[in-house]
Amino acid sequence: MRILVDERGKKYLLKDEEFHTNFGFIKKKDIESCKVGDVLKTHLGREFRVIKPNVNDYIKLMERKCSIILPKDIGMVIAYTGLGSGQRVLEAGTGAGAAAIYFGNIVGPEGKVYSYEVREDFVDVARANISGFALENVFVKFQDIKGGIEEKDMDLVFLDLIKPWEVIEHLNDVLKIGGYVAAYTPYIEQFQILQRVLKKFNFSQLNTLECILRDIEVKNRGTRPKTRMVGHTGYLTFARRL
Amino acid sequence: MRILVDERGKKYLLKDEEFHTNFGFIKKKDIESCKVGDVLKTHLGREFRVIKPNVNDYIKLMERKCSIILPKDIGMVIAYTGLGSGQRVLEAGTGAGAAAIYFGNIVGPEGKVYSYEVREDFVDVARANISGFALENVFVKFQDIKGGIEEKDMDLVFLDLIKPWEVIEHLNDVLKIGGYVAAYTPYIEQFQILQRVLKKFNFSQLNTLECILRDIEVKNRGTRPKTRMVGHTGYLTFARRL
Amino acid sequence: MRILVDERGKKYLLKDEEFHTNFGFIKKKDIESCKVGDVLKTHLGREFRVIKPNVNDYIKLMERKCSIILPKDIGMVIAYTGLGSGQRVLEAGTGAGAAAIYFGNIVGPEGKVYSYEVREDFVDVARANISGFALENVFVKFQDIKGGIEEKDMDLVFLDLIKPWEVIEHLNDVLKIGGYVAAYTPYIEQFQILQRVLKKFNFSQLNTLECILRDIEVKNRGTRPKTRMVGHTGYLTFARRL
Amino acid sequence: MRILVDERGKKYLLKDEEFHTNFGFIKKKDIESCKVGDVLKTHLGREFRVIKPNVNDYIKLMERKCSIILPKDIGMVIAYTGLGSGQRVLEAGTGAGAAAIYFGNIVGPEGKVYSYEVREDFVDVARANISGFALENVFVKFQDIKGGIEEKDMDLVFLDLIKPWEVIEHLNDVLKIGGYVAAYTPYIEQFQILQRVLKKFNFSQLNTLECILRDIEVKNRGTRPKTRMVGHTGYLTFARRL
Repeated sequence: MRILVDERGKKYLLKDEEFHTNFGFIKKKDIESCKVGDVLKTHLGREFRVIKPNVNDYIKLMERKCSIILPKDIGMVIAYTGLGSGQRVLEAGTGAGAAAIYFGNIVGPEGKVYSYEVREDFVDVARANISGFALENVFVKFQDIKGGIEEKDMDLVFLDLIKPWEVIEHLNDVLKIGGYVAAYTPYIEQFQILQRVLKKFNFSQLNTLECILRDIEVKNRGTRPKTRMVGHTGYLTFARRL
Repeated sequence: MRILVDERGKKYLLKDEEFHTNFGFIKKKDIESCKVGDVLKTHLGREFRVIKPNVNDYIKLMERKCSIILPKDIGMVIAYTGLGSGQRVLEAGTGAGAAAIYFGNIVGPEGKVYSYEVREDFVDVARANISGFALENVFVKFQDIKGGIEEKDMDLVFLDLIKPWEVIEHLNDVLKIGGYVAAYTPYIEQFQILQRVLKKFNFSQLNTLECILRDIEVKNRGTRPKTRMVGHTGYLTFARRL
Repeated sequence: MRILVDERGKKYLLKDEEFHTNFGFIKKKDIESCKVGDVLKTHLGREFRVIKPNVNDYIKLMERKCSIILPKDIGMVIAYTGLGSGQRVLEAGTGAGAAAIYFGNIVGPEGKVYSYEVREDFVDVARANISGFALENVFVKFQDIKGGIEEKDMDLVFLDLIKPWEVIEHLNDVLKIGGYVAAYTPYIEQFQILQRVLKKFNFSQLNTLECILRDIEVKNRGTRPKTRMVGHTGYLTFARRL
Repeated sequence: MRILVDERGKKYLLKDEEFHTNFGFIKKKDIESCKVGDVLKTHLGREFRVIKPNVNDYIKLMERKCSIILPKDIGMVIAYTGLGSGQRVLEAGTGAGAAAIYFGNIVGPEGKVYSYEVREDFVDVARANISGFALENVFVKFQDIKGGIEEKDMDLVFLDLIKPWEVIEHLNDVLKIGGYVAAYTPYIEQFQILQRVLKKFNFSQLNTLECILRDIEVKNRGTRPKTRMVGHTGYLTFARRL
């Protein structure tokens, strides 16, 4: 798995085929034999550097059929639940697989990520994306999570569903003691219902957060936050089985 | 490594000794033999549940002699640099070890974290904290990072220094191609200088972010962001070796 | 109406009586004869400068029995409704009179402010505060606004009530064409109901805003937003009769 | 001065001439004779309601050759300086006249606004805009404020200049005791220099603020802050002559 970076920093996912851009092409055999750090030239002389994509490079370039959770939000989930190497994560729904890839990248070969998705087209895209990033610890299940959950001893259950509260009653059997539920919901009404249901099923440490990210520009004419910003993505609700 | 949680959710780090609270004591032999999930009773009948601490539980309870990076900020570092299992991280300065513990928890047994610290008292506290969380992949070095860096092939260099720009010139030799520098600085003047130096040494994808976290209260009388909040912790500046 | 400012910038409301501080006293006759700009000395030699209070000085020093709307929020009301000299404002409830004083200060001698309040103790405090700032265009009515509104041709109706939606049905008769309703509510549930009722009664240009104010510190060691900030006061909902 | 509002809420500034839209035209004589509250019909039968514009309606529709201060920022200036009826305001630079019109609307017939502008094209546009809103208390001066200031006894000096610090040394002579300087600057470097110069010339109560405005959507599918928002306009720095 390698990507090319052009002189302006733009990145391109490499496949085992001839590489075409507006700046010329690179032959299939050059691509097959290149190593990370090499500089490849198109037939027009433009240079592209070969790098190993990290998880963000990959997620930006992979196929998606739906909106994708932003790094700021996945970062909150990881930090507030203390996700780490070797942990076990359950997710619903998979979407294009972005969160599952982030989780798989962190829990590593000793960890596991199980992700439920009801839309078959999403399952196909997500599986292709996950295997494209060479993750062997992420399992996408074409299954409705409301139909029951087989997995046990989870450290984290991450819910990116329209009605995450429908799943809560099963989670005491699914989570380890000390394990977390985290849910991503765009609307206020969603986390209001969710908190009520989490309380009903005796979850502890309920907390709803919103992460507002400001991008600061450092230019010759001066320093300032960017003129336009993302105003809102979603709220993150956390709870814990204690 | 286990912690006790009382009926109101307050947590206590367990040591191999009798446990004393305002609600009575628990005998040393009960503590030695308890397992995760057990409920221990004090001689006054109060119940404490035994849980395995996650990284946030532990960091909140461990000894600290200095302020500690918040989860919101460590979450941004993890997500924006794509940190994952098996990666190699270099850090300066260690402080009480909080960031090193977060990193060690994520990179896992196949990864490594090297952390430089010039204050001997911090080195001692950090080493005790790290071994208390049973991390064997984190190495605190009582050494000034400006004196030279022996490590190579890093995925991430994280700088929590007053003058992070003093280290930048060495980092091209220390980072993998595609690897990240991330620096945490409370003041605007700091990231202004840092960005200038990062440009001078040809780093790419320069970016300074600020993460503003809002905590939302869901109570019977209504839903609203909390009245008081943390207004600012620090700016996070990212750059990449390409 | 004059205030004293001490050497550190602290302000004191002057009454027609001897003035006592920890730094000594100033005689009644000195206070009666002083003019704006004068410097008065206590019998211990400490200096106090006489200034004319502006509306913010006054509101900070006046008596209050309840929380008071912050300048950031009253500023949004003024700017988004285009409040100006000569306009007619209706308010409920008065509280300590802070918003009424801001409004009275702006609409001037050609304008009028009518403010309804159901708690007699608040009415007394507000009337004293308003006459203390020498406003003759603000009228506090000890009356429940739900019992009916006599005033007509208002440019602005400002509601600082727990259930502002209970008043909306009367406002088409009270507002000029083009006039505004503005409501201040701490909770999300409040503006959700309010927007529904505003729509039902055919109000236009519905809008709910939240003003987040950041205070920036410029010190020798560096520039940064303050560490602690007000996280939330209230939401402002605007609508217009068109 | 009247505006038309169509059925979807869009507004149009009326001049003494035939009114043309995509929905037909309205005759000059109908326009000349209409009163606030009337409904006019185009020859195609579409309805337009006549309303009296408030200051925001007018500023949105008036001619502009430059960016215009947002209501959120002018609201901060008004509220934090306690601007009111009868006050005296000095401004530089005028731009299209938006801030001057807001100030003129508030200080009323007993107040005065003097505004300095060095670009003749801006002076022309601003004068036309100000007289279009029928303000007789706002005076645009085609003059460089650095060349000296004739006005005295100001309650507020508002600076919307690239280098507002160049004017500060003159302001002790221009402001009343207790009067305010307020400066709007997009960049951090600007308010850093400005604060230094304000201190040098003994101004008190220095304060730099940033107002972040969030727009909340209340829709059938749920409530949430808008997806896109203005990330930054400018910083507001306040100081006072005491």
